[in-house]
Amino acid sequence: MRIPDLIQKKRDGGQHTEAEIRFLIEGYVNGQVPDYQVAAWLMAVFFQGMTPEETTYLTLAMAESGDLLDLSSLSHTVDKHSTGGVGDKTSLVLTPMLAALGLTVAKMSGRGLAHTGGTIDKLESIPGWSPVLEDEAFLKQAREIGLALVGQSKNLAPADGLLYALRDVTGTVECVPLIASSIMSKKLAAGAKTIVLDVKVGSGAFMKTLQDGQILAEAMVNIGKLSGRNVRAVLTDMETPLGRMTGNTLEVLEAIQTLRGEGPEDLRELCLSLAKETLLAEGFSEEEADRRPREVLQDGSALAKLRAFVASQGGDPSYIDDPSLFFVAPETVEVQAHASGFVSHIEALKIGQALLVLGGGRETKGEAIDHSVGIELLKKLGEKVQAGEPIARIYHQNKGKDAALKLVEEALKIEGKQPAEAELILGHIA
Amino acid sequence: MRIPDLIQKKRDGGQHTEAEIRFLIEGYVNGQVPDYQVAAWLMAVFFQGMTPEETTYLTLAMAESGDLLDLSSLSHTVDKHSTGGVGDKTSLVLTPMLAALGLTVAKMSGRGLAHTGGTIDKLESIPGWSPVLEDEAFLKQAREIGLALVGQSKNLAPADGLLYALRDVTGTVECVPLIASSIMSKKLAAGAKTIVLDVKVGSGAFMKTLQDGQILAEAMVNIGKLSGRNVRAVLTDMETPLGRMTGNTLEVLEAIQTLRGEGPEDLRELCLSLAKETLLAEGFSEEEADRRPREVLQDGSALAKLRAFVASQGGDPSYIDDPSLFFVAPETVEVQAHASGFVSHIEALKIGQALLVLGGGRETKGEAIDHSVGIELLKKLGEKVQAGEPIARIYHQNKGKDAALKLVEEALKIEGKQPAEAELILGHIA
Repeated sequence: MRIPDLIQKKRDGGQHTEAEIRFLIEGYVNGQVPDYQVAAWLMAVFFQGMTPEETTYLTLAMAESGDLLDLSSLSHTVDKHSTGGVGDKTSLVLTPMLAALGLTVAKMSGRGLAHTGGTIDKLESIPGWSPVLEDEAFLKQAREIGLALVGQSKNLAPADGLLYALRDVTGTVECVPLIASSIMSKKLAAGAKTIVLDVKVGSGAFMKTLQDGQILAEAMVNIGKLSGRNVRAVLTDMETPLGRMTGNTLEVLEAIQTLRGEGPEDLRELCLSLAKETLLAEGFSEEEADRRPREVLQDGSALAKLRAFVASQGGDPSYIDDPSLFFVAPETVEVQAHASGFVSHIEALKIGQALLVLGGGRETKGEAIDHSVGIELLKKLGEKVQAGEPIARIYHQNKGKDAALKLVEEALKIEGKQPAEAELILGHIA
Repeated sequence: MRIPDLIQKKRDGGQHTEAEIRFLIEGYVNGQVPDYQVAAWLMAVFFQGMTPEETTYLTLAMAESGDLLDLSSLSHTVDKHSTGGVGDKTSLVLTPMLAALGLTVAKMSGRGLAHTGGTIDKLESIPGWSPVLEDEAFLKQAREIGLALVGQSKNLAPADGLLYALRDVTGTVECVPLIASSIMSKKLAAGAKTIVLDVKVGSGAFMKTLQDGQILAEAMVNIGKLSGRNVRAVLTDMETPLGRMTGNTLEVLEAIQTLRGEGPEDLRELCLSLAKETLLAEGFSEEEADRRPREVLQDGSALAKLRAFVASQGGDPSYIDDPSLFFVAPETVEVQAHASGFVSHIEALKIGQALLVLGGGRETKGEAIDHSVGIELLKKLGEKVQAGEPIARIYHQNKGKDAALKLVEEALKIEGKQPAEAELILGHIA
C-alpha cells in the first residue's frame, strides 16, 4: 500500500477500505506518514466526501489510536455531547436526570474555549468539587450514584488532536465526515453504549444552517449504527443563548433552579427532549420516555442525584441545598432598552464574547478563569420591554466591564413588532 | 495575508491575485510556508483549476525563484521544448536549422531520465563535445554561430523542483495548470523571446489523449501571451517512436542523416513543422515559413551549423563529416516477424524501456549511460513484412540483451490488414 495511491484514489472519487484508512491514520500517528500527504488527502476528502462506511472506519481508527475507556462493568451507560453553544448548561441538568432515570453516566467532559463554555469549568464553581477521580473510584461512583464526571485525563483519540490541528491550518475544517469523525472518535473511545447528541444550529454555533446541522447529525448517527452504539441526535437552535444565564457560577445556579422545576422554559424543554431521546435509545416506550423525565424533575430525584454526585467528588453539598451561598460577582451594571418594543434578537456569539472579556472564559488552553462573572438576560426573545427598562445585567469584577457592556448592547435588538416565536427543537435524527 | 485563507479561497473556487501567489511561492521557497499547507493548496488547485492569469502569476513566481538568464544582448532568441518521447532527436536537427535560418538558439538542455532521452546525453556521443560553457563564451558562440547548447548549470526555477517533488508524493501531478507552469517556469527563466513547444500525445507520452494535449498546449501558449513571450505549440503523435533509431549515438546518426536530407520522413516532417511555427512566431510570412526550412536542409547550411556548433564546444567535427567514425555497439541481435502482414503498432514506451535495460538510459539522476547501444526499427508503422523477416535490430554490449529482446517483441504488433496511416502532426496552438 502506497500513500500517494490512496490520495489519488480518494481524489478520483474512490472508496477506501478499512485497511487503507487504518494504514493512513496509524501511519500518521506513529510518524511514518508525513503531514503533507495527510493534508493533500484531507483536501481530497473535502471535495469527494466519504461514505458512512469510510467515515466509520476513520472514526474507529481515530478512537483506537489512544486509550479506550472500559465501561463494560457498568450497565446502561449513556453519554451526551453538545456541538457547543452559549449559556449551554444542559449537561448539569441532564446528567443527574439520566442518573435518576436509572441510567449510568460515566463521562469525561471538557473545559471551555473561546466563546463556548465547558462543563468542568462550571462544576468547579462549587467549592471543593474536583474533576479528578482514580479509575476505580470513577467506576464505583458511576455504579453507585449513576453519575461520575471527570476531566479528560486519558489520552482519548490522539489522532483526532493531530488531524484537527492539521485541518485548522490547511483549510479543511468545514467538512462533514471529518467533523463527524472528530466528535465521534472521542465519544467511541469514552466507552458508553448510548450516545445522545445535541447538534446546535445558528449564528452562535459551528453549523450555521439547519440543513448543515441535519447532514452532520445524520453522519454521526450513521457512525453509531455502523459501530454498534445507540446514537440519537437532537437539532436545536443556537441563534440566542440557552436560558437566561451565561457565566460559570450563574449557569450552575440556573441548572439547580431547573432541577427544582423553576428554570427557564427553553432549558427545561431541551433537557426533557434529550432525556427522551436517551430513553428511546435505551428501549423505553414513547409514553415512558415522555413521562419519566418530567417525574424526576418534579419529585426531586434528579436534584438529589446532583447533590450526591457533587458530594462524592468532594464538593460542598450545602451549596446545592442553599444556592445563595454561591459567590457571584457583586458589582453589576445593567443594559437599558434604548426603545420600547419587543426583544427581537439576542446574538449568542456576542454574549459569549462578553463573558470572555469579563474574564469568565479563556482564549487559549490553560488560562485561569473567573467563575463569578457573567451575563443575565432579564428579558428573553419575544418579551415586551419599555424604553429605559433594564434588559440585561452584567456581573463583573471591574475587568472588561465597558467592552462587555458594548457587546451585550450590540447583541440585543428591539423591534416594534412582536417576533414570531422561535422554535428551540428543530429536529430529531435516529 | 494568511496561508489558510488562501487555501480556503482556492478551495471555494476563488481567483488568486498575483500578490497572493507570490506570497505562497516565495514563502514556500524560503521555508516560511510549510509543505503541508502547499500540499493542501495543490489539491485545491487540482479540483478548482486556475485561470490563465493565475497560472501565469504562478509561472512567473516560480521562474523568478532562481537565476534568470539574460539573453538581451542577443537578437531573435528562440527556444524549443518537447514534453518528452522515445527516439526524439528533434532538437539535434531543429536547432541547427533555426541557426541557419538566422535565429539565435542559446539553450539549456537536460539529460534523459527513465524511458525518455535527453539532448545533452545524445550530443555527448560526439567525442570531445562538452555541455559546459562559461557565460561569456556561451553568449559569444550564440551570437557568432547562432547555436549554443549547454547543460542546466544555472539554478533555474528552484520552486519548480520543490513543487514537483511535493506533487509527486501527494497525488497532484496530473493537473494542467501545474504541469504548464512547471514547464514554462524553466523556459521563461531560460530567457528566449520565442518558445516553440512540441506537445507529445499518446501512450508513450505524458498526455495520453489529443484533448488533454490540446488543453496543456493552450495553457502554455496562454502563459506565453500573458508574460510577453511568443509561444506556439505543435501537437504530435507519440504512440510509436520518432524515426527509426532509439539510443544516443544511433539518434545522432539519424539526426545527421536528416540534416543531409536523407532521414526518416516523420522526423523530417516534425522538424519542418516546428521550424515553420518558429518562423511564424518570429513574424515571417506563411510562404517563407514553409519554404525556408526546406532550403536550409537542402543547401547544407543547417548541417554546417551543426558542424560549427560541435567544433565550438570541443567536439570532433570529422564525426559530422564522416558518421562511420561513430562507435556503435558491434553486437547485434534481430527481432524477426512472427507472422506475415503489416506492422500495426510499435509501442513507444516498451522501446524506451528496452533502451533502459540495455544500459542506454538511466533510472535515477547521475547514473552513467552507454551511448553505443540502442534499437533500430527496420520496419516502420504500416510497412509490409514477411514471417521470419527481421523487423528490428538491437545493438548491445552483452547487458540486458534478452530483456530488451522481449520488450521489443512485445512492442511490435503485426496484423493481416494494412493499418490506416497515422498522422504525426495532430494540431497547432498559437
